Amino acid sequence: MTTTNATIQSELAQAARDFDSHLSAWVDQWAANRIAPQLVEAMRYSLLVGGKRLRPVLALWSCAACGSDSSSAISAAFAIECIHTFSLIHDDLPALDDDDLRRGQPTCHKKFGEATAILAGDGLLTLAFEALASAKLPAERVVALTRELSDATGPAGMIGGEWLDLDAEGKDLDEDDVQRIHTLKTARLIRSACRLGGTCAGASREQLNALSGYGKSLGLAFQIADDVLDVEGDPARMGKRTNKDNARGKPTYPAAVGVEKSKTIMRDLAKAAEEHLSVFGPEANRLRALARYVIERAA
Amino acid sequence: MTTTNATIQSELAQAARDFDSHLSAWVDQWAANRIAPQLVEAMRYSLLVGGKRLRPVLALWSCAACGSDSSSAISAAFAIECIHTFSLIHDDLPALDDDDLRRGQPTCHKKFGEATAILAGDGLLTLAFEALASAKLPAERVVALTRELSDATGPAGMIGGEWLDLDAEGKDLDEDDVQRIHTLKTARLIRSACRLGGTCAGASREQLNALSGYGKSLGLAFQIADDVLDVEGDPARMGKRTNKDNARGKPTYPAAVGVEKSKTIMRDLAKAAEEHLSVFGPEANRLRALARYVIERAA
Repeated sequence: MTTTNATIQSELAQAARDFDSHLSAWVDQWAANRIAPQLVEAMRYSLLVGGKRLRPVLALWSCAACGSDSSSAISAAFAIECIHTFSLIHDDLPALDDDDLRRGQPTCHKKFGEATAILAGDGLLTLAFEALASAKLPAERVVALTRELSDATGPAGMIGGEWLDLDAEGKDLDEDDVQRIHTLKTARLIRSACRLGGTCAGASREQLNALSGYGKSLGLAFQIADDVLDVEGDPARMGKRTNKDNARGKPTYPAAVGVEKSKTIMRDLAKAAEEHLSVFGPEANRLRALARYVIERAA
Repeated sequence: MTTTNATIQSELAQAARDFDSHLSAWVDQWAANRIAPQLVEAMRYSLLVGGKRLRPVLALWSCAACGSDSSSAISAAFAIECIHTFSLIHDDLPALDDDDLRRGQPTCHKKFGEATAILAGDGLLTLAFEALASAKLPAERVVALTRELSDATGPAGMIGGEWLDLDAEGKDLDEDDVQRIHTLKTARLIRSACRLGGTCAGASREQLNALSGYGKSLGLAFQIADDVLDVEGDPARMGKRTNKDNARGKPTYPAAVGVEKSKTIMRDLAKAAEEHLSVFGPEANRLRALARYVIERAA
C-alpha cells in the first residue's frame, strides 16, 4: 500500500489542524495566568502563528507507529513545538539572524520588542519541560522524555547547531561541515520528535533505533529542501524572504555542492529514511509517505 | 543551640567551595563535548565566575534538614544554579538591564558577544533539566523536581517576574506591587531551591510546606537586602555598580517605602522565615542561621 503525495499532504494538514486545536486549548490553560500578560501574549502569538507542525505530528505518528494511540504523545508534541518555537524566536533576534518576518507575520521581537521576545523564548523553553512533567505517563517514561529532549535541545544538540550556524557565516565550508551543522541545527530536533513519540508508546530499543535513523535522515532531507527552496522558491508562497542564505553567507548544501547535487543527496536521504522503517508494518505508512512528501516541494 | 553569623558565614563559604568543586567536575564532563567550543566556554565562564551559591546550598541544606544526605540533592543544586546563571546572562543583555559587569567581571555578552550570550543562556536553561533527568533518584521524584523547577522558572515564576520588573521601570509602584515583583523575580526561585532539596529527600507534605514558607520569606528578605545595599552599599565590595536601581527607575522597596521601613520589613521576613522551620529539629539550624545572616549585610 503506498500513499500518494496528495493524500499525505491532506493527512498532514488534518493532523496539524487537530494538533492546533489541542495546542490552542492547552495555551488557553496556562495563558489564563495573567501575571505578565504581554509576555504570555508574545508566547501565545509565536506558538499559534501557524506552521506545518511537522515536529509534533512526527511525535504523534511515531507513537502510533509503535502501536499506541497517538494521544499518548500529546504532551511530548506540545513540548517539541515549544522548543521549536523558542528557537525561532531567539534565532530571529537582531543579534542572531535579524529577521523581521516569519510565516508571513512580524517576528516576535518586531511585534513585542526585543526584551519581551527574549523572555518569551525563555518561557517557551521552560514550558516544554513543564509539558513533559505533566504528561499522563509512567514516571520512568517522563524521565526518559526529559533526558531525550534536553539532550536534543542543548549545547550538544540544536543550540550547539545554531551557534555553529552563526559561526560559519561567510566561511568556506565543505559538504561535511554543512552536514554537521544541519544535523545539529535541524535534524537533531526532528529525530527527537520521533524518539519522543516512540518513548511515549514504550517503544522497544529496536523501534527507537529505527525512529532515530528515520528522523535523522528525514530532518537532514528537510533542511536541504529548505536550502534549495531558498535558492529556487517563491517568496510569496514561503512567507519569508528567499535567497537570503546566500546573501548572508549561510552554510547551505547548494553553496557547498551546488543545487543539483543537493537534490540528489536529499532524495537519497528521503529513501534512507523510509528504509529505516522496515521494522514497522503498515502502521508506519504515514511516516513513510512523509519522507517522500517533505522533499517533494523542492524536487 | 544558636549559630553565630560568623559561624554561618564560614559554613556557607565552605559549602559554596564544596559545591564549586562538584560543579566544576560536572562542567568538565559536558564541556568535553567540543561541538561548539566558544558556546560551551561562555556557559562555563558564567557558571564558574563565582557567587555566593546561595540557591544550590539551600537545596543541599534543605535536603539535609529533611534527614537525607545532602549529596542526594547535588543534581538539583546543579539545576538551580544553571537556572540562576541563565537568568543573569539574559538579564544583563543590552535589551534588558544592559549591564557590563557582574561579580566584578565582564558580563557574558561583553566577553563573548550578544548572540553567544543568548545561546549560552538557552543552553544553561536546557542543561538544568538535563541535570534533573540524570539525578540518581526514583523516577517519581525526578518528575516532581522537573515540575517544580519548570513552574518556578517559567512565565508564572521567575521569567514572569523579570518581565514585570522591566515593565515596571519608571512607574510609580506601591509596596504591594514591589512585593509581587520581588516574590516572582527572586523569591520564587529561592523557594524552589528549598523545595527541590526537600523533594530529593522525599520530604513529607508538612516539611515541603515549611520549606516553601521559609524559602519565600528568605527570598524576599534577600531581595530587600539587595535593594537596600544598592542604596547604601560600597560598589567595590559588591562587584557591580550601586545606586543603579534608582537611576533606572527600578521597582525597589526603598523607592516604595523608604530605606528604614524596608529594613523593618526585611527583619520581619527573616524572623518569619525562621519560624516556618519549627517543624524541624536541630538539623535545620543552618537554614535558621542563614535567615539571620542574609539580612545582616544590609541591617
